[in-house]
Amino acid sequence: MTKGRLEAFTDGVLAIIITIMVLELKVPHGENFEDLKPLLPVFLSYILSFIYLAIYWNNHHHMLQTVKRVTGTILWANMHLLFWLSLIPFVTGWMGENHFSSPAVLLYGIILLAAAIAYWILQRSIIKEHGKEALLAKALGRDFKGKVSPVFYTIGIIGAYINVWIAGFVYVLVAVMWLIPDKRIEKALKEESKIKTE
Amino acid sequence: MTKGRLEAFTDGVLAIIITIMVLELKVPHGENFEDLKPLLPVFLSYILSFIYLAIYWNNHHHMLQTVKRVTGTILWANMHLLFWLSLIPFVTGWMGENHFSSPAVLLYGIILLAAAIAYWILQRSIIKEHGKEALLAKALGRDFKGKVSPVFYTIGIIGAYINVWIAGFVYVLVAVMWLIPDKRIEKALKEESKIKTE
Amino acid sequence: MTKGRLEAFTDGVLAIIITIMVLELKVPHGENFEDLKPLLPVFLSYILSFIYLAIYWNNHHHMLQTVKRVTGTILWANMHLLFWLSLIPFVTGWMGENHFSSPAVLLYGIILLAAAIAYWILQRSIIKEHGKEALLAKALGRDFKGKVSPVFYTIGIIGAYINVWIAGFVYVLVAVMWLIPDKRIEKALKEESKIKTE
Amino acid sequence: MTKGRLEAFTDGVLAIIITIMVLELKVPHGENFEDLKPLLPVFLSYILSFIYLAIYWNNHHHMLQTVKRVTGTILWANMHLLFWLSLIPFVTGWMGENHFSSPAVLLYGIILLAAAIAYWILQRSIIKEHGKEALLAKALGRDFKGKVSPVFYTIGIIGAYINVWIAGFVYVLVAVMWLIPDKRIEKALKEESKIKTE
Repeated sequence: MTKGRLEAFTDGVLAIIITIMVLELKVPHGENFEDLKPLLPVFLSYILSFIYLAIYWNNHHHMLQTVKRVTGTILWANMHLLFWLSLIPFVTGWMGENHFSSPAVLLYGIILLAAAIAYWILQRSIIKEHGKEALLAKALGRDFKGKVSPVFYTIGIIGAYINVWIAGFVYVLVAVMWLIPDKRIEKALKEESKIKTE
Repeated sequence: MTKGRLEAFTDGVLAIIITIMVLELKVPHGENFEDLKPLLPVFLSYILSFIYLAIYWNNHHHMLQTVKRVTGTILWANMHLLFWLSLIPFVTGWMGENHFSSPAVLLYGIILLAAAIAYWILQRSIIKEHGKEALLAKALGRDFKGKVSPVFYTIGIIGAYINVWIAGFVYVLVAVMWLIPDKRIEKALKEESKIKTE
Repeated sequence: MTKGRLEAFTDGVLAIIITIMVLELKVPHGENFEDLKPLLPVFLSYILSFIYLAIYWNNHHHMLQTVKRVTGTILWANMHLLFWLSLIPFVTGWMGENHFSSPAVLLYGIILLAAAIAYWILQRSIIKEHGKEALLAKALGRDFKGKVSPVFYTIGIIGAYINVWIAGFVYVLVAVMWLIPDKRIEKALKEESKIKTE
Repeated sequence: MTKGRLEAFTDGVLAIIITIMVLELKVPHGENFEDLKPLLPVFLSYILSFIYLAIYWNNHHHMLQTVKRVTGTILWANMHLLFWLSLIPFVTGWMGENHFSSPAVLLYGIILLAAAIAYWILQRSIIKEHGKEALLAKALGRDFKGKVSPVFYTIGIIGAYINVWIAGFVYVLVAVMWLIPDKRIEKALKEESKIKTE
């Protein structure tokens, strides 16, 4: 099985998810800037989700470069990840429309957590197919970010009960942490190509 | 004619169908978890349709790997399949919004049946072009799943008259049956590449 | 300039247009089959537009196989075609929602006519770039279908004033005429590859 | 990192943005041509935004042909551009629905300005990675259009306060200016391929 079509399908789904979210920004009927005010929380939610989806696309892109064989397990692990990501426009809309109400912020964290777990499963299934000596396994190393993210999401979910700003702060923190590009895989790829040319 | 653009177009349409369905999950105005309750049937329908579309994408992917020439007949058989699949978001929404009412569950089965027939026609047109000795014909063999699915859908459609849970059970059963990846084509592909390298 | 990205973009836009149309099939609130009745004209319009867009994709696919160089003119002629095609979901929805009222059927014909002219311009700009001796120019030959379609659309547009069924009949007729795959380009391509191998 | 997937993702997002805009053209309930009249400003806004997005796709296409390495910085600069472009359907809808009210026309200009700045940042990050002697740097030369556009947008934004027609005129002017295809990069590419073949 070729990985080209898996990438193309994933790109398509992510491109649509990221763009469809903007439909939650419903065009207001009023014509003044004040009529945009109620949209501010939706807009802020949109920015956060846009960044999260961009991070997922970016990391997915890096991860698939290390893939040589696509098995049925990898394919379904990928579909499972896309399922949770496809729910992001819904929770983004709900969180925005209710001005960051506690239940919506909590649900947002649950979807982020579920997506993180789905990503981890996909990573595992790729490593299992390609072996511990494979590129991805080496690149991940201790995988600090991957391990710490679900912990943060859980803190966010619990925090949403106490004060939504705790959750909001944690979600932004994780996004910022991931925004720093993943040098590990890039490094490993470069080293491999070095070894080959030597 | 190249099959690359046929795959790309099919991927695009399937990616959009699978993602557009989430728009049926209308963001509720209330801010409590209870306000999500009426969405539960829509969400369950969404999961089922997501799995069905993922199965179609997966099987389509496998099937097209065996294709060497794309004729006008194959192209239109593919369009015909996409037409029925494009109606899945509509029936998913109707089934979910009416809390699995008998007519909606029945119509859902009819669309599944029509898509299954369209897939079978596409399969036939590929085999006809490539010959009985071709890869796909060998891979399918007795094609148990393909033959049994329409029977199950018909049972589901009739069952929806008596009790919607019969239909629901049958639809889930067929999905589970297909979720087991199609080893037949993978096997046939491997064997062919073996013969070539020998 | 490579034609790959032009094809990819066109495929993307056409895939979205064809799928977004289904959103005009608004999920009814009632749970009986009778609640679907008002959707019948929308559904019929959907089928017709689906076929038209599939024909455009198919013909576009064939035409671009003959393209060797993509110039700015070709690129913008392609965008111009996509613009008119992007209005098809709107006119389909209007025609369906008003149960084939005379103005909507007329506007539908105007959009079909505009798209046909845009397609013709695209064809001209490709032939101009590649020369009269080029593949596409030869393949088109007298281009019967291409010349007769705008005439039929005009008949449809005028007919919509008198009786919408005249227009409806003409639109279906043109679609059926195009459904017969375009053997001309396929033939010309085969002949060229023959000459090359000789 | 390969640029193929970056192009594919960008194409996908732009194709969706350009097509989703048409959903702002809400199908009217009336069946006469007069019922379309209130849609005229939305339609005009749609045409303008369609042209702008087509220009961005076109220029992006040209620019990426000069790219040899995709770094994390380039990738995120590209995401940043897509973010601003993804807001175009929203401002298009708002501007159209309020019949070109002053605040909406102003906001439209701000989004255009933000997208222009994002494009400039992307350009910078590509040149930084590939060096001043690289193809893009040479092709851009003095980059008249790129430098003059933000100035015009600013005039449009300020003009929207005084009279929306000033802004409208300026926005159309910039679009027309860009519609003239960018010969610079095409030229530079041709020269490079000449040098190589010599």
